[in-house]
Amino acid sequence: MAKKAYPLSKVYGLLESGPVVLLTTARGNRPNIMTMSWHTMIEFVPPLIGCIISNRNYSFGILKATKECVINIPTVEIAERVVGCGNTSGAKVNKFEKFGFTPKTGAQVGAPLIDECFANLECRVVDTKMVSKYCMFVVEVIKAWIDPAAKNPKTIHHLGNGNFMVAGDRIKLKSKMK
Amino acid sequence: MAKKAYPLSKVYGLLESGPVVLLTTARGNRPNIMTMSWHTMIEFVPPLIGCIISNRNYSFGILKATKECVINIPTVEIAERVVGCGNTSGAKVNKFEKFGFTPKTGAQVGAPLIDECFANLECRVVDTKMVSKYCMFVVEVIKAWIDPAAKNPKTIHHLGNGNFMVAGDRIKLKSKMK
Repeated sequence: MAKKAYPLSKVYGLLESGPVVLLTTARGNRPNIMTMSWHTMIEFVPPLIGCIISNRNYSFGILKATKECVINIPTVEIAERVVGCGNTSGAKVNKFEKFGFTPKTGAQVGAPLIDECFANLECRVVDTKMVSKYCMFVVEVIKAWIDPAAKNPKTIHHLGNGNFMVAGDRIKLKSKMK
Repeated sequence: MAKKAYPLSKVYGLLESGPVVLLTTARGNRPNIMTMSWHTMIEFVPPLIGCIISNRNYSFGILKATKECVINIPTVEIAERVVGCGNTSGAKVNKFEKFGFTPKTGAQVGAPLIDECFANLECRVVDTKMVSKYCMFVVEVIKAWIDPAAKNPKTIHHLGNGNFMVAGDRIKLKSKMK
């Protein structure tokens, strides 16, 4: 997928609708993928995101140590593989190989980008104060990529227990909100 | 709308898909409504939610003072009124009156429930440590209500600048994820 750089000031629009995302990390040559639904925008520019990552996840220790990750946004076409990533542990398997994802090298971080996702956000951890109490990492997006062909991406949104809502129609309302 | 009590253990499924919500507060006899998209689940039980509420919002000071709010989840049928709430300030208008919303008395908190929303989550602020740096309030849901007739609620999800994605099809995938 040929991606284009995406303005950091527009990143919030990719995430505030609440899509399931795939968080990638890497330690040494070993990459990992984690499925994540618990995240929120915290600031527009620089884009700050609060990510809740349970300390039961293999990615938790890697992120704490490396302070680098990529937030990749998948669409419904690869939903089964997204769920697969959520049901396996990187301690046991290489999820890129198991689920047939293509790692791409980032411009700013050591964690790989997932080529099959329409957007990739390279991030650095900027605050770990909420990690011990809430497993919340505050990350800053330092480089963003998008597939320019993705016009109305069918993101998926978790409702619990394997039930997902797929992004539906779009509407535009007159608004002063950013 | 006749609402039923909803189990606190199922609340995460209402919010992790990332819907736009209406946050209600009250000071004295004066209720307010704020439109909010920046929120994340933090814990399943008790349900904890991180809410980003800019200190430019009238609700910010009320929430800080009263430590009580209700998270109301609207559907597309009332999308224009939801946007209206986001484009006006409670410092100037009573939004319940202006937008024709019906306030209902909560069981646990002084903030009103919006009857026109299919779900209402009564919340107490439990942590304000991230307020000064990130405008993030951690709230605990202490009582939840749902319209039992709402089977596949068409929640709305903000994409920025008045563009919204409306909840589309549902899919069910085999998953061990909660």
